[in-house]
Amino acid sequence: MNEPVHPPPNRPASATRLRLRHPRGETRIWVGEGALAPSLDALAGWIGERALFVLTTPRVWGLHGERLQTLFDRAAVTEVLEVEEGEAAKDLEVAGQLWDRMLAAGGKRDSRLLTFGGGSVGDLGGFVAGCFLRGIEYAQLPTTLLAQVDASLGGKTAVDRPGAKNCVGLFHHPEAVVCDTRLLATLPREELRAGLAEVVKMAALLDPDLLSRVERDLAVLLAGDAAALAPVVAASARAKIEVVEEDPEEADRRRVLNFGHTMGHALEAAAGFSALRHGEAVAYGMLFALRLARARDLAAELAPRLVRLLGRFDLPPLPPSLGREELIALIGRDKKARESGVAWVLPAKLGEAVIVNDISRNDVERQIAPFLAAPFLIE
Amino acid sequence: MNEPVHPPPNRPASATRLRLRHPRGETRIWVGEGALAPSLDALAGWIGERALFVLTTPRVWGLHGERLQTLFDRAAVTEVLEVEEGEAAKDLEVAGQLWDRMLAAGGKRDSRLLTFGGGSVGDLGGFVAGCFLRGIEYAQLPTTLLAQVDASLGGKTAVDRPGAKNCVGLFHHPEAVVCDTRLLATLPREELRAGLAEVVKMAALLDPDLLSRVERDLAVLLAGDAAALAPVVAASARAKIEVVEEDPEEADRRRVLNFGHTMGHALEAAAGFSALRHGEAVAYGMLFALRLARARDLAAELAPRLVRLLGRFDLPPLPPSLGREELIALIGRDKKARESGVAWVLPAKLGEAVIVNDISRNDVERQIAPFLAAPFLIE
Repeated sequence: MNEPVHPPPNRPASATRLRLRHPRGETRIWVGEGALAPSLDALAGWIGERALFVLTTPRVWGLHGERLQTLFDRAAVTEVLEVEEGEAAKDLEVAGQLWDRMLAAGGKRDSRLLTFGGGSVGDLGGFVAGCFLRGIEYAQLPTTLLAQVDASLGGKTAVDRPGAKNCVGLFHHPEAVVCDTRLLATLPREELRAGLAEVVKMAALLDPDLLSRVERDLAVLLAGDAAALAPVVAASARAKIEVVEEDPEEADRRRVLNFGHTMGHALEAAAGFSALRHGEAVAYGMLFALRLARARDLAAELAPRLVRLLGRFDLPPLPPSLGREELIALIGRDKKARESGVAWVLPAKLGEAVIVNDISRNDVERQIAPFLAAPFLIE
Repeated sequence: MNEPVHPPPNRPASATRLRLRHPRGETRIWVGEGALAPSLDALAGWIGERALFVLTTPRVWGLHGERLQTLFDRAAVTEVLEVEEGEAAKDLEVAGQLWDRMLAAGGKRDSRLLTFGGGSVGDLGGFVAGCFLRGIEYAQLPTTLLAQVDASLGGKTAVDRPGAKNCVGLFHHPEAVVCDTRLLATLPREELRAGLAEVVKMAALLDPDLLSRVERDLAVLLAGDAAALAPVVAASARAKIEVVEEDPEEADRRRVLNFGHTMGHALEAAAGFSALRHGEAVAYGMLFALRLARARDLAAELAPRLVRLLGRFDLPPLPPSLGREELIALIGRDKKARESGVAWVLPAKLGEAVIVNDISRNDVERQIAPFLAAPFLIE
C-alpha cells in the first residue's frame, strides 16, 4: 500500500491476475501498469487461427492500435470495426451494420471479438458479440477509467433507444478483460474524473480502504498517473467481482452497484446524454441519494465525507434547464424498476448500503428543488 | 397408442405435461388437444399483476385472441403487439419499434411477454424478450405445427439480416410453452406439411415409433385433425427435449436437429424466403443430405423409406431459378459453420445420425445438379 506516487521512468509492466466466476464460466482479468503486454500470450492463444473482429474508435485505434499487432499476426483474418465515440455508437442500426460486416468478412460461431475503447464500445461490443449467431466469445480491452473500473466487468451489454439508455441488451460475460492503466495517460481530466466517480461509488459501499486511498491520491489520480491508478483499478475490480459473483444477474445484491444511478440516469437523460458524462451524472446521483439517506437518518458520517470528496472533483455544474417533473418521470422509468416501484440504493454508513422500495414520489419531490439549487448542500 | 383417428365431437380438452430442464431453470410444457384451457391457471399465476405484452399477428389475434381473455383480466396492463406474418417480422427495426412500445407502455424487468403465432412470432418474441432490459420472462403459445413441434422449444431466438436468416439472436428459454393442437385446425394444408417435415426430421433420427405413426396417419395429420396431431406433437416435443437437455447450446449433440437444415437454409435463402416455407426447404434439405449419406453408403434402408414418405407430402417443386454456385456459396455461410468448415448431419440408419466435417466442396458440387433435376431420385 506504499507505492510511490510518482513512478520512476521505465517502471516495468506488471499485472495483477484476477478472475470472475459466473454461471457460464469465468472471466480472466489482468489489471496493472502495462498489463496489456503480459496478457498478449493468453489472448493470442484464445484467438487462435480464427477470424478476429476489433471494435474500436478512430481515436483509440490511432493512439494504441499498434499495441495489438501480435494478436493480428495470429488470427486467420482481422477486421477492424470503427464506430463513433460515446453513446452515439450504442445504436441498433449501428449494431446491424456491424453484424452485416462480420457476416461479409466470414464471421463464424467460433470467431472472436475484442472491444478496444471506453464504456460505450464495450457495451456495444458485448451486445454485438452476444447476439451474433446467438453468441460468440469476446474480450474487453477498456481504454477509459470508467470502463476499467466498472463497465468492462460483469457481463452487462447494451444499446440505447431514444430516451432510454441501455434498455436493450443481455448478460454476456467476456472471456478476458485487460485493464492497462498506461492507456489512461492520454485521457482528458474530465474522463478520469468520471471514472473516479464510479470508484467512489464502490469504495463508499464496499471498500473503506479504497475510499481512503482515493481521498489521499486524488490529485495524481486525476492527472492520469498510471502507477497510482493501478491499485485503484485493481481494488475496484475486486469489489465488483465479489458483488457480481454473489448475484450475477442483479436479482438482489448486485443492485448495490446502482448507488447514484437512479437519479444519475435521470440526469443524463434529461440533459440529453451529451451535457453530462455518465460518471459525472452518477456523482450528482450519489449526492441526491445521500439526501434521501439523510432524510432517513442514515449515513450521518459518510454523507459529509463523500460530499467533501466529490466537492474536490470540480464537477461541471448541473445544466440549468433540468425540470423537476421531467426528472421524476424519468426516475419512474428506471430500468431496474419493477411493478412494485423503484428500488433506491441508499448508503447506511461506510461500507454498508440499504436498498429501499418505499421512497414515495413525495419523498423525491421534496428533495429535488433543493438538490438542483445546491447539490452539495446536504443537511 | 390407439387413439381414434376421427375424434368424437366435444372430446374433452386434455394436456400432456412435460418439462425441459435448461441451465437457467426449466420450461413447463403443455401439449394436447385443447391444452390451452388447462394451462391458463398456471399462466395467470405466472403473469400475476404485472404488465403483459402479447406478440401476435392480425390473423391469429382475430381467430384465437379471445381464448386468452382470462389472462388479460389478471394482468396489471395488457398491450397487444401485432406484427406481420412470416419472416418479414424478424427484423431489427421491427424489434426496435416493439421495444419502444414496451417502454412507452411501462414495461419493466418483471413484465411478461407471450408469443401467440407461428415460428416467426416465436423467434422474434424470444429475441425481444431476451434483450428487453437485459431479459424478461416469456411464454410461447405456438399456433402452427412447425412452431409446436420444434421452434417453440429450446430457447433459440432470432431475427434476420439481409440474406442471412436467424443470424442475430440469443438463447433465451421460455418459462412455459403451450401446444394446443386445436389451434391447428385453421391452418392451410401447406403449413401442416411444413410442420410435418420437422416431425419427420426428428422421427427419423430420434424416434422410430413416431416415424411409423406419421407414415400411418399422414392423411389425417395433413388434414389438421387435432386428436391425431396431439400424440405427434407430444412425441416430437419429447424427442427435442431429450436432445436439448443434453446439449443446451448446440455444442455437439443438439446439432442432430439440423438434419436437412444445411441445404434447407441455402434453398430458403436462394429462393428468397418466400417461394419455399422453412419446413418445405427442410424436406428438400433432408433429401439432399440423404444423397450425401448414400454416397458414403449410409442409410441404405432409411433413405428409400424417407423418400417415399416425403413423396406423399406433395411438396411444391423447387424454384427453377436456383443456381448451383449460389447454393454452394450459401452453404459455406451456414451459421453453424466453424473456421474448420461446415458440419453436415447425415442419417446413418433409422434412429441414428452422424455429424461429419469432411464433406468437400466437390462432394457437394457432384450432388447438386442431379438433386436439382430430380430431388426424389436417390440411388
